[in-house]
Amino acid sequence: MRAMVLRGDALAIEDVERPTPGPGQVLAKVLACGICGSDLHAALYLGEMIAASRASGSSAWDTIDREQAMVMGHEFVAEVVEVGEGAENWRPGQRVTSMPVLPDRDAPNGFRSIGYAPEVPGAYGEYVLMGAAMLLPVEDSLPDEVAATTEPCAVGLHAVRQAGLTSRDHVVVMGAGPIGLMTLLWLKEEGVKHVTVSDYAASRRGLAARLGADLVVNPGETGVQEAHEAVMGSRPTVVFECVGIRGTLEQAMEMTERQGTVVVVGVCMLEDTIRPMVGINKQLTLRFVLGYTADEYAEALAALTAGRVDTRPLITRIVSLEELPAAFKALASPEECKVVVKPNG
Amino acid sequence: MRAMVLRGDALAIEDVERPTPGPGQVLAKVLACGICGSDLHAALYLGEMIAASRASGSSAWDTIDREQAMVMGHEFVAEVVEVGEGAENWRPGQRVTSMPVLPDRDAPNGFRSIGYAPEVPGAYGEYVLMGAAMLLPVEDSLPDEVAATTEPCAVGLHAVRQAGLTSRDHVVVMGAGPIGLMTLLWLKEEGVKHVTVSDYAASRRGLAARLGADLVVNPGETGVQEAHEAVMGSRPTVVFECVGIRGTLEQAMEMTERQGTVVVVGVCMLEDTIRPMVGINKQLTLRFVLGYTADEYAEALAALTAGRVDTRPLITRIVSLEELPAAFKALASPEECKVVVKPNG
Repeated sequence: MRAMVLRGDALAIEDVERPTPGPGQVLAKVLACGICGSDLHAALYLGEMIAASRASGSSAWDTIDREQAMVMGHEFVAEVVEVGEGAENWRPGQRVTSMPVLPDRDAPNGFRSIGYAPEVPGAYGEYVLMGAAMLLPVEDSLPDEVAATTEPCAVGLHAVRQAGLTSRDHVVVMGAGPIGLMTLLWLKEEGVKHVTVSDYAASRRGLAARLGADLVVNPGETGVQEAHEAVMGSRPTVVFECVGIRGTLEQAMEMTERQGTVVVVGVCMLEDTIRPMVGINKQLTLRFVLGYTADEYAEALAALTAGRVDTRPLITRIVSLEELPAAFKALASPEECKVVVKPNG
Repeated sequence: MRAMVLRGDALAIEDVERPTPGPGQVLAKVLACGICGSDLHAALYLGEMIAASRASGSSAWDTIDREQAMVMGHEFVAEVVEVGEGAENWRPGQRVTSMPVLPDRDAPNGFRSIGYAPEVPGAYGEYVLMGAAMLLPVEDSLPDEVAATTEPCAVGLHAVRQAGLTSRDHVVVMGAGPIGLMTLLWLKEEGVKHVTVSDYAASRRGLAARLGADLVVNPGETGVQEAHEAVMGSRPTVVFECVGIRGTLEQAMEMTERQGTVVVVGVCMLEDTIRPMVGINKQLTLRFVLGYTADEYAEALAALTAGRVDTRPLITRIVSLEELPAAFKALASPEECKVVVKPNG
């Protein structure tokens, strides 16, 4: 089958072996798969990602080798083609999505991360293996490219839920990339009274305004804290840091109201510098978040299906598999937001 | 009156004006005052402390000038000598302690920090002004030097309460200085099932063992995480960082169990470097804490009075006012723990 292979920092479309579903697995034809910022990171910082994983006491990434070929892709919707032993309650033709976790008896802890394992190809290819126990059927009304946003939509939901928001909270979201915007969507869906979104890119500020931001700010022109304070009367009680580059965590800490919370959603790949005294003086809570629960993944799919959360404005481009390597490069431009590949045309 | 004056980074015993109690204030003779690590910091890093305070949006330190003389001292017990207008329900001779906060109509927000304000002398002198509304009587049974530990004892209580501990938590306390040991005392008083304490100094490890630590570790010889894990079967679910030097926050993050909490009690005066990915991978919560509530201050005093918490082993030396500048220097040695000055002999 055709797939996009990452080898070192090179991306290329190649022929790779089409996998066979093992026990508890199904083979599915990929209908759509979103490009995730983590995949862009992985093409640049895989060494740092593996090192941090090991420092965290995790073995999940220990089998990854920067020089070994890997097919990424973990935000997907697919159609069942073939079922493995014990997965017979699924039938070919069913359209499904799932968390990117694959049960695999040969894996050290019984699972592999779909899209971040050299042993099994992710969804940047024609076919992907999925775990039968985790499959969620996708209703016909939901277009492929929208169903493919279930995963980042669940990331935004998880970030919002982890903040433990109350009715007194008013919020700044730093960064209007896909994750910042997913966070915004859920903040508005959950009824938070005020959300300020900051981004340097006019196109992304426009998206934020369209998706319900109460105030959008260009930090290149206006102080985000001052702009928020002018409307709300105090600094934000909760700041979602959705940028993840050096320095933005300290900015978030300085911006937050006393006793407030910084939710760290953006993943800074490198060491970062903060002033702990700012945290101490204000008695801040920093909550680092990652992923989502199985319940949150299902809730995100249900909200997309019902139209309660509408991610369609985020999808700026749909590309073919052959166009995918170029699309990775194009995502350096803030004009793009969520780009979705349809590997089977 | 005689007092120890900080000017730049120089400490000297000098004659300063004895203050007069204004409305809502009492003048009290200082019976005992503990040396706080923050005072050692202030003599070295006052510029950084003021800068961080301003970055935090606080005006509390804005009136401090590194070149202006200041009498520190905020962990004290004293005897009422003279009462101001509206403080007539207090009478000379009463022994009292209070949070180091002084109501002052001339202050920008109506209060001054006792011990960190050039306008009013702190308790490293013969007399101190106190706020009548905050005074707590001290029972005769409680020795002066023990009553003077109420303030750091309240700091330990606050740190423990902010951690939101449950019965499943097991804990590492990094650093067995006064605040680490106060934290240990409250962790044991609150019934936490296991507390590991780490410190490089044998004398402080000895103190920790005497105060109830379940395991003491010399990080120069043994990995703290490994030692804790060998006993408890997993990494600590909560780590109290009570060292506050560059690098210890990252160490705490690496040591903590997934989904765990780092309570940041130690105050690193300088910028510090962390790896945000470690926090993300483990979904850590970092809780920066400072000070205590009025209720916690009163609870600490009550616990000391009842003997439920015993801080006496921490008090390694009692000095006169004349000996105080030298005692500041001696605290560079880990052989000393809590040093208390009795400015009136």
